[in-house]
Amino acid sequence: MSTLNEYISKNFDRFTDELIELLKIPSVSADPAYKDDVHNCAAFIKESLEKAGVDKAEIVPTKGYPVVYGEKIIDPKLPTVLVYGHYDVQPADPVELWDSPAFEPVIKKTELHPEGAIFARGACDDKGQMYMHVKAFETMVKTDTLACNVKFMIEGEEEVGSENLAHFLKAEKERLAADVILVSDTALVSKDVPSITTGLRGLSYVEVEVTGPNRDLHSGVYGGAVANPINVLCDMIASLQDEDGRITVEGFYDNVQMVSHEERKAMSEIPFSEEDYKKKLGIKEVKGEKGYSTIERASIRPTLDVNGIWGGYIGEGAKTVLPSKAYAKISMRLVPNQGPDEITEKFKKHFEKIAPDYVSVKVTPHHGGEPAVIPVDSDEYRAASKAMEAAFGKEPVPARGGGSIPIVSLFEKVLGLKTVLMGFGLDTDAIHSPNEHYGLFNYRKGIETIPQFFAEYAKLKNN
Amino acid sequence: MSTLNEYISKNFDRFTDELIELLKIPSVSADPAYKDDVHNCAAFIKESLEKAGVDKAEIVPTKGYPVVYGEKIIDPKLPTVLVYGHYDVQPADPVELWDSPAFEPVIKKTELHPEGAIFARGACDDKGQMYMHVKAFETMVKTDTLACNVKFMIEGEEEVGSENLAHFLKAEKERLAADVILVSDTALVSKDVPSITTGLRGLSYVEVEVTGPNRDLHSGVYGGAVANPINVLCDMIASLQDEDGRITVEGFYDNVQMVSHEERKAMSEIPFSEEDYKKKLGIKEVKGEKGYSTIERASIRPTLDVNGIWGGYIGEGAKTVLPSKAYAKISMRLVPNQGPDEITEKFKKHFEKIAPDYVSVKVTPHHGGEPAVIPVDSDEYRAASKAMEAAFGKEPVPARGGGSIPIVSLFEKVLGLKTVLMGFGLDTDAIHSPNEHYGLFNYRKGIETIPQFFAEYAKLKNN
Repeated sequence: MSTLNEYISKNFDRFTDELIELLKIPSVSADPAYKDDVHNCAAFIKESLEKAGVDKAEIVPTKGYPVVYGEKIIDPKLPTVLVYGHYDVQPADPVELWDSPAFEPVIKKTELHPEGAIFARGACDDKGQMYMHVKAFETMVKTDTLACNVKFMIEGEEEVGSENLAHFLKAEKERLAADVILVSDTALVSKDVPSITTGLRGLSYVEVEVTGPNRDLHSGVYGGAVANPINVLCDMIASLQDEDGRITVEGFYDNVQMVSHEERKAMSEIPFSEEDYKKKLGIKEVKGEKGYSTIERASIRPTLDVNGIWGGYIGEGAKTVLPSKAYAKISMRLVPNQGPDEITEKFKKHFEKIAPDYVSVKVTPHHGGEPAVIPVDSDEYRAASKAMEAAFGKEPVPARGGGSIPIVSLFEKVLGLKTVLMGFGLDTDAIHSPNEHYGLFNYRKGIETIPQFFAEYAKLKNN
Repeated sequence: MSTLNEYISKNFDRFTDELIELLKIPSVSADPAYKDDVHNCAAFIKESLEKAGVDKAEIVPTKGYPVVYGEKIIDPKLPTVLVYGHYDVQPADPVELWDSPAFEPVIKKTELHPEGAIFARGACDDKGQMYMHVKAFETMVKTDTLACNVKFMIEGEEEVGSENLAHFLKAEKERLAADVILVSDTALVSKDVPSITTGLRGLSYVEVEVTGPNRDLHSGVYGGAVANPINVLCDMIASLQDEDGRITVEGFYDNVQMVSHEERKAMSEIPFSEEDYKKKLGIKEVKGEKGYSTIERASIRPTLDVNGIWGGYIGEGAKTVLPSKAYAKISMRLVPNQGPDEITEKFKKHFEKIAPDYVSVKVTPHHGGEPAVIPVDSDEYRAASKAMEAAFGKEPVPARGGGSIPIVSLFEKVLGLKTVLMGFGLDTDAIHSPNEHYGLFNYRKGIETIPQFFAEYAKLKNN
């Protein structure tokens, strides 16, 4: 398919410039302050799809941010690939830790990326990976090599739990009819170890509020005699994990599916240096559930993390206050077959149960997501594997991802479709962190691989 | 002394209006944003002293905020009372919890204050209580009843640890020569149970920082495999107290002076309803060190409170971040003979010692303060007791205060002077909290009592 790569080579600089323009739009879905930017971003995507050659594109409103839909049907008899991605991004804070502004993209060379990487919020997650599909599609259209019908569904609420997507899928079921869903929102094991994500963790996310006295108190006058809600919150959080790193929430592990000896063996064979891992993170020791390796702890085992905590005086200087309230955002990564609603309910019950008499607690569920597993013995996996092999020159390894793409199970439930998670990011891309970036190598490899997938998938389906 | 009370009655409305003007100045010493306001407040105090009748007043600069000094020497043979107070105030946040703006004083009637109370930051702590001395002084001058020489020393850094006061005292030792120091910055047991504070707790205040990975991480990609500094901070804080409410910092209790059976018996006789206490605070249960009463826990026993905690994502919505750092402000109230430097050092050692390998910790000391005890069998106590009895119609009870006025021990060390803590606030005044207020009853009682103290003290000293 040299014509494809020729076209990509000729146009790669423009592909990069277009992505940079997209990254300048601060489409932060979690913060209402960016409302207009998120909508402008949707318009940008629609226009990009039209320029790339879809028959029609449309901004479909939802109760929240719209979904951008586009399609090109070349032959009803050919298989149809439904591409999913999201144009919203995580908040940029802590902004002071960025070396360059989050929404002023710059290309910098790094040790890992001598070809250069684009630094900006969303560079990888998911604007960079999503835009690869737009440019791969353009390439297939312009080189007349499009082998399947294609439909695009690019949403704007992934980073806040895709709350309105379920309703969208149900309402648009017919229009979304397809044979497979293709998503690039995951990572490779490394630049030279291509991989396809065969499993994802689910998510249960809650916010807790602990209330002590009915007003902030002077810690001198009341300290020692009245329970301090911050201290109590710390006690409660500390009690949620035991010394073996096991989560103490009652019934938390009830539905955890044990991973087969074979799969654990395969995971243990993935090239991985713990020393290197610790060095990159600047930590002396790793920490996790007893009896599992670092790779397993980050993929096939459930977790509990405090994503945010606040209470009392957090300004400059010292204030001797015994506060009325303390808060925390707590998320749990789930594995098959834990259900987010099940776990959220168990957490709520447990947290309320362990709350001592001298405080009151409130547990508010945020979004959740189902864990998912993608079978290796399927046409869609084979097509992805062949496509990657063609682009990377070596067969990809199946890998469990630690993150959550809740919509994967949603797609299966509502549309009855399997999802291929063919991502090109790297764990070092610092997604959700300051200085998020995406390697030009990865961006290009994605654009090269996607047309291969279309071709391979069409072949497999037509046999 | 009816002439005195006559003058007070005639001028009380003006006294109140003047205090309200003073309360409009946001002299927050902890926040550099209010620098100019703090300096303006010093100027206001100097002018008030001049109007009240001092021979001379002066704004004495320090490395931080200035001390306002004023004096009136009527006869070198008469005893001299050195009045201490502070014109700086605590930050107003959380501002959203104030029923009326913190720096727009309003007078409202409450169940406890049918005569009305002034609501504003600093209304009680310490502008209201400090200004009573200015108005009591004016009253004595204008009614020609001043019985002692008087010196004023009103500082602007009490709420941030009086960092520059020690140097000021040493430099101004001669000018500050006096027989006793009089301070109103404490509370009465209740409106109808006058009391004099005979003991104060000291303070050790530290800020801790826990660092995990060298950058914020995606909790899906790394969660479960890398220690989360917020969870670790919670574990560490939880471990600082055992189930009996005892502080586990090594050697923390080494120098704690046991309080005599007699004094504990006297404390147990102070009128106090725990049910009422809980009702006012809106709590189901009190919590504290095993083996001590609520009054004892809040006065004669040391404490450990988290005054503030923060880390990770604390904005709107949900962010699945595994943060690099977590922070807390922790203060310990001390009792005789614990030293703030001793305890801060012990805390630092302990906190660093219990830090697990997978994080690094930093402990930064803020200000500290020595605990203090004021002897009951002294001229100054007797004078205060007689003065209160005259104003309230009943003998005051000696009471241990839970708060800290670090400068009391400083005065003894540097100036060799005893301090009388004759405060007129109430624990319900919400100092350091939203809706701080000061009863007009208390404001007036203070202005009535202070001249009585001057008269009684002169009598005792001249016999």
